[in-house]
Amino acid sequence: MKQIAVVLSGCGFKDGSEIHESVLTLLAIDKNNARYTCFAPDIDNIEIINHITNQKTGEKRNVLIESARIARGDIYPLNKFDAKNFDALVFPGGFGAAANLSTFAIQGADCSVNNEVSEAIAQMLKAKKPIGALCIAPVILAKLIKNAELTVGDCINTASLIEKMGAVHKKSSATDIIIDKTNKLITTPCYMLATRISQIAEGAEKLVKEILNLTNG
Amino acid sequence: MKQIAVVLSGCGFKDGSEIHESVLTLLAIDKNNARYTCFAPDIDNIEIINHITNQKTGEKRNVLIESARIARGDIYPLNKFDAKNFDALVFPGGFGAAANLSTFAIQGADCSVNNEVSEAIAQMLKAKKPIGALCIAPVILAKLIKNAELTVGDCINTASLIEKMGAVHKKSSATDIIIDKTNKLITTPCYMLATRISQIAEGAEKLVKEILNLTNG
Repeated sequence: MKQIAVVLSGCGFKDGSEIHESVLTLLAIDKNNARYTCFAPDIDNIEIINHITNQKTGEKRNVLIESARIARGDIYPLNKFDAKNFDALVFPGGFGAAANLSTFAIQGADCSVNNEVSEAIAQMLKAKKPIGALCIAPVILAKLIKNAELTVGDCINTASLIEKMGAVHKKSSATDIIIDKTNKLITTPCYMLATRISQIAEGAEKLVKEILNLTNG
Repeated sequence: MKQIAVVLSGCGFKDGSEIHESVLTLLAIDKNNARYTCFAPDIDNIEIINHITNQKTGEKRNVLIESARIARGDIYPLNKFDAKNFDALVFPGGFGAAANLSTFAIQGADCSVNNEVSEAIAQMLKAKKPIGALCIAPVILAKLIKNAELTVGDCINTASLIEKMGAVHKKSSATDIIIDKTNKLITTPCYMLATRISQIAEGAEKLVKEILNLTNG
C-alpha cells in the first residue's frame, strides 16, 4: 500500500488548512487504496481569524494541535517526517500554507519557508518522489524549486509573484492539474477558483491519482 | 434545486462536529445537485479538547464561530432557521452533537436538547420534511421523537440509552442507513463504526440520496 504524507497548517481556510481540501485529499488517498499520515509543524498559528467576521481574535493556538482536529487526533510533528517512509507528500491549501508554513502572505516573493517544510520537500526531491500542492500551497514549491512548473489557477497577481520567485506559472481552471514531470510536482487550483465543494473533490482526486501514477515511474 | 440545512456543532470530533462527516455531507449534497446552508447555535462550546492529548484546554470558544471554519464562513445562527425555506435538515455527528446540541454526553437518557435544535426539528416534523442524522447525532432525535426508528451502529450502551428515551434502535453496519418512513428520519453510523474515511463518504452519500428521495414523497 502506497504511503502518502499530508502536511496540514491549522484548521480553517482563513488561518490554517482549508478544511474541504484537506478532507477531500484524505478521502482521495483512501479511495485509491493508499494510506495517509498527517503531519504539521509544532508552532504557534500566526493569528487566529473569526471565520464569520474576518476579525483577528487575539487568541493563541498551535498549528499541530489545531490540525489534529482534521486528522482526528492521528497526526505527527513535521520534524518526525522522514521521506524514506513515504511515497509522496501533499500540501492542501488554505491561508495556513501562506502564513504558517511560509511567510508568503506577508512577504510575497521575498517570503521564507518554515525549516521543517523545506527539509521535508528537500528530502522528497532528493529521493525523486512526487509532491502535490493544492490551492495557494504551490507558492511554497515556487520558492524552493527553481523552474518548477505549477499552477494557482488564473490569479495574475499570485502568478506574477510565482514567476518572480523563479518558477513557471501555468494557467489552469478549477479542477485541472498541472504536472511538472522533471520535479515530479502536481498542483491544482481548488478554492483559488472553485465555487463548489464537488470541484474540490474532483481536483483532489485527479491530483492523488496522478501522484500515485508518478510513484510507479 | 432542493435546499438542505446542515446543523453544525463546532469544529472537531472531540468537542464539536466531526469534520469528515460534515464535509462529506456537504459534498454529497452538492454532488446530488442540491444546495446546502449551514447553521449552528450561537452558544459557548461546552469545553475545548486538545485533539492530540484529549486534555481540556480551558479555552472559551463559540460553537457558531468554530463551525464557520467548516462552512467557509457561510453560516447562520440556528435561531434564523425556518423550515419553510428548506426541504430537509441534517445533523452530522461528533461530540458536539452530544455535548453542545444536547446534554446526552453528560446526562444520557435524561439529557435535554438545545431549544433552537428542538424548535428546528419540531418545525420539520410538523411540515413532514425529512431529517438526517449521522454518527452519535441520532440521540437527539431519540430524545425528541417517540418511537423514532434509528441507528448508532452496534454500540449496546448507546442503543440501550436510545431505547430508554423511547426510541427504537436498529443495529447496522458502518455504511448502512436506517429509514424511519413514519417520521421521515434517516440515520447512519459513520464513525460510530467506520475505520476509513471512504466509509464516511459512502454513508453520507446514501443518507443524502435517501433524504432527497423522501423530499419527493
